[in-house]
Amino acid sequence: MLKSASLVARFDKKEAIKLAEDLAKYLRAKGLEVYVEDTLAQKMSIEAKNVSLEQMRTDFIITIGGDGTILRTCVSIPKPEPPILAINMGVRGFLTEVEPTQAFTAVDRCLKGEFTIEKCMKLSITADDMKFPDALNEALISADEPAKLLYAQILKDGEPILNCQADGLMIATQTGSTGYSLSAGGPVLDPGVDAFVLTPVCALSVFRSIVFPADSSLTVEVLRPRKTLVVIDGHHRKIISSKLPSITVTRSEYETSFIRFRENFYHRLRSRLLFRGLGGKTKRRRQMKES
Amino acid sequence: MLKSASLVARFDKKEAIKLAEDLAKYLRAKGLEVYVEDTLAQKMSIEAKNVSLEQMRTDFIITIGGDGTILRTCVSIPKPEPPILAINMGVRGFLTEVEPTQAFTAVDRCLKGEFTIEKCMKLSITADDMKFPDALNEALISADEPAKLLYAQILKDGEPILNCQADGLMIATQTGSTGYSLSAGGPVLDPGVDAFVLTPVCALSVFRSIVFPADSSLTVEVLRPRKTLVVIDGHHRKIISSKLPSITVTRSEYETSFIRFRENFYHRLRSRLLFRGLGGKTKRRRQMKES
Amino acid sequence: MLKSASLVARFDKKEAIKLAEDLAKYLRAKGLEVYVEDTLAQKMSIEAKNVSLEQMRTDFIITIGGDGTILRTCVSIPKPEPPILAINMGVRGFLTEVEPTQAFTAVDRCLKGEFTIEKCMKLSITADDMKFPDALNEALISADEPAKLLYAQILKDGEPILNCQADGLMIATQTGSTGYSLSAGGPVLDPGVDAFVLTPVCALSVFRSIVFPADSSLTVEVLRPRKTLVVIDGHHRKIISSKLPSITVTRSEYETSFIRFRENFYHRLRSRLLFRGLGGKTKRRRQMKES
Amino acid sequence: MLKSASLVARFDKKEAIKLAEDLAKYLRAKGLEVYVEDTLAQKMSIEAKNVSLEQMRTDFIITIGGDGTILRTCVSIPKPEPPILAINMGVRGFLTEVEPTQAFTAVDRCLKGEFTIEKCMKLSITADDMKFPDALNEALISADEPAKLLYAQILKDGEPILNCQADGLMIATQTGSTGYSLSAGGPVLDPGVDAFVLTPVCALSVFRSIVFPADSSLTVEVLRPRKTLVVIDGHHRKIISSKLPSITVTRSEYETSFIRFRENFYHRLRSRLLFRGLGGKTKRRRQMKES
Repeated sequence: MLKSASLVARFDKKEAIKLAEDLAKYLRAKGLEVYVEDTLAQKMSIEAKNVSLEQMRTDFIITIGGDGTILRTCVSIPKPEPPILAINMGVRGFLTEVEPTQAFTAVDRCLKGEFTIEKCMKLSITADDMKFPDALNEALISADEPAKLLYAQILKDGEPILNCQADGLMIATQTGSTGYSLSAGGPVLDPGVDAFVLTPVCALSVFRSIVFPADSSLTVEVLRPRKTLVVIDGHHRKIISSKLPSITVTRSEYETSFIRFRENFYHRLRSRLLFRGLGGKTKRRRQMKES
Repeated sequence: MLKSASLVARFDKKEAIKLAEDLAKYLRAKGLEVYVEDTLAQKMSIEAKNVSLEQMRTDFIITIGGDGTILRTCVSIPKPEPPILAINMGVRGFLTEVEPTQAFTAVDRCLKGEFTIEKCMKLSITADDMKFPDALNEALISADEPAKLLYAQILKDGEPILNCQADGLMIATQTGSTGYSLSAGGPVLDPGVDAFVLTPVCALSVFRSIVFPADSSLTVEVLRPRKTLVVIDGHHRKIISSKLPSITVTRSEYETSFIRFRENFYHRLRSRLLFRGLGGKTKRRRQMKES
Repeated sequence: MLKSASLVARFDKKEAIKLAEDLAKYLRAKGLEVYVEDTLAQKMSIEAKNVSLEQMRTDFIITIGGDGTILRTCVSIPKPEPPILAINMGVRGFLTEVEPTQAFTAVDRCLKGEFTIEKCMKLSITADDMKFPDALNEALISADEPAKLLYAQILKDGEPILNCQADGLMIATQTGSTGYSLSAGGPVLDPGVDAFVLTPVCALSVFRSIVFPADSSLTVEVLRPRKTLVVIDGHHRKIISSKLPSITVTRSEYETSFIRFRENFYHRLRSRLLFRGLGGKTKRRRQMKES
Repeated sequence: MLKSASLVARFDKKEAIKLAEDLAKYLRAKGLEVYVEDTLAQKMSIEAKNVSLEQMRTDFIITIGGDGTILRTCVSIPKPEPPILAINMGVRGFLTEVEPTQAFTAVDRCLKGEFTIEKCMKLSITADDMKFPDALNEALISADEPAKLLYAQILKDGEPILNCQADGLMIATQTGSTGYSLSAGGPVLDPGVDAFVLTPVCALSVFRSIVFPADSSLTVEVLRPRKTLVVIDGHHRKIISSKLPSITVTRSEYETSFIRFRENFYHRLRSRLLFRGLGGKTKRRRQMKES
């Protein structure tokens, strides 16, 4: 049973802060211990226990925002990660589960235990002796500036497999395959596929997405330029200045857990920009055939 | 130990028939029982035991030709399939293992047991009560004529996931992901990924490749037009005229086995047309870094 | 001034036939001489002068349907083509100008002369000594069956420029660049560009769209297979059985004329399936900047 | 008749500097006035008249290097630009005309007047009141960092046509259509097409390349982020920090002139990485047909 909750919301939208306040009161009235992300707490007009993302060890976490808010949360919360109930108040809400109007109903269902947990694979990224935060969506390896070629060699499980010249190399999870990776031309990975996908950005050489088993270790050895940029989930950015850096991507031992009320990957996919026009509603055809 | 062999070769190339003759003699001299595909036997100038592809139950099969010869062989040989040693004498030899000049050395290594078996997943395709041959590369579902839209609904494990309007829908294995599916814009699947990939051909709606777990069941329910064409591995063609046909694709219980002398998927991939320019040779970079 | 009109409509939709009847009466009441496509006339419950598409020499033509109806009309009407007022009653209405509810208002504006004529380039296609109908959208050259490779050499102004192996080769006009050609991966050509575009379908070799000047002559010399299929605007299909046929595409001396009430290529483009998500409405930003 | 020449070479390759020295002597022996780019002159072991790129007003210019050397030269030389004889000593030599071994023969042909001039359109780029160097290949408009979305509105001739969210927007000439723009997924523009092409990089919304008439004016109004990066020909980089900057691209009044010995756009294209596999040699098929 859920006894404690944390609230995370985007700061730049009044409605998000207001909903956070209302949910905080509602959860407290239901007898839960409620925490609020410290930076958010300062913007709220009600008293609330502050907690940093790094210390957010409650039974579940409610995020109010879009995919950006979720990705920012996932990068920092303690491992193993508490499950996330994601309320959509963002431009892109692909990962979110409920609309603001359903927020209280959703919370009620959570408290009654009427939900399932969707576990999403994350990627572990290391560069030589440096450890990056795990990626829920993707890691992008590129030059430090746009429009600059990255010369790299790609190794699978330590064996060189391909050389490449491209603006960037993106390695995405199943979850991330519907995000930035899709924009870069990558395929969609069904959530049930045990794999991640490598997609080049503006490759000079001919080169398509390659789908690797989730238990493989993918290494990108950068030959040029001197400075390599690694971007995790579009948020965490780090420039590596070491000579010939070697970035290795594997499946993380941790996962992100989402509270879901129904299986709806394809439902969400159909509503995605890039898949529009696929027929909003799919329906059983049995009747059609019989008629 | 290998005690019997069958020979399959393309008929339209004298060099292929000549090599088949030479290999037949060589294998016989080594004490093996040798069979020759019946249609090929008629073109050979030596005596040979005839056998149809359907009856080819020898310890291994040698194919002389390109991918077409292999695909034609796989469609018909008995299950479980004897391992194939594929000698390249074709336009496209992506699946082949050795060049003609290495044919005798390769046979020697086979007889000494110095090889590994690469097992390749196949797809089982059924349409209502019709069973198609298993596909090693891919199944294409399209209208019966080029440039005609197929209206279909796609179901995963019985649940509708997407509607689609396209010239065709291609479902490819890992092996097939480097063939026709790549031409259609699909990703490459590493041989270790337990998955198959759906790629639309000339989709009217926006729609990218989707990678599904190998144990999922994918169904294409065709709404229009009246006649649906199913093409297996580019060779086996069948027009379905039933109303609203339903084509289901799953992992086959059988696999195709290739005799391989080294792990060389990416070696073969680099030599593929669509991946040229990726740097012919990859090399260990350790030295570069140390120098 | 417009004194005569012809009506073309899709036969398979009652609303289309009903609107045709209503428009016929309306136009006659306005004093115009009204003709109806002969096959449509048989389905109408009112008396009407019959005329075949081939004899449709009226001051303008009204089509009721989608792009298919327009393309079917363009292929057959006499040259130079009377201008078309296209009323949308189709799945795809990219080329159409008005919705059914605006049909009578649109006719009124036509009679008052309040319209502009959009002239659309067409392609002239010949194969050896055979002449095909001009294409408003595109010509597809392919094997006679799906999933069969076409081996061809492409010549520009008689000079060989590229060899190619693909399922098909599509040559599209500016108008066609937003249709089938877009599905095949081609670029959009602004209506003001004096060019046509060649796009391969499922090319085995690497090969992108190439945009040629409108006054160039593009020839496809087919090496294999024996039978070549040419499809004009998705409707007119012809199999060429000559040995090594040579198909030449040039700008036609004729154009298709559409009656338009406003410049709206990008308005129509934004509403296209493949361009959704581009922000329904674009607006002047001047104010934003000043605010 | 050519009476004066300037030499430009990459500095980081001894062979390039050596060839520059040899060509300088050769040209002087032929009676030409010879200038050497000032930074190059310092690395040469022979005496030479120095000149900056900005002052290079000789009858022609010889560049020794790859496309990078040519692009760097074009950005700075005075307008109208002297014709360039480009000798290939680079990774990418798409724009170059001759290999180093043919350098002296090529110079001889130049002096005899046995050459043609290929004139290549350039793009003029302005941002509010800022003027950028003309682009021979392309202008990229992006956020100041990789993996950061650019929100922009695109206007043609002052009229808003599309909104877009992408990592970048690339506008390429015919010449540039075979370079970076091709890597971004753009079409090839035949040199005879009077057009330029807009291609998005990693577009969030669905969005393909659009080909515009060369005399149109394309404006990108950036809504976000605060800092916009403009990269000309991969070399000239400038960050614009003004609020809501407006970048306008039109055809430049100047062109780059290349000395060519034969029409060879498609010859060069076939040798490009992305077009490999297209059959190295195209040949007249007349004979095949007759045989």
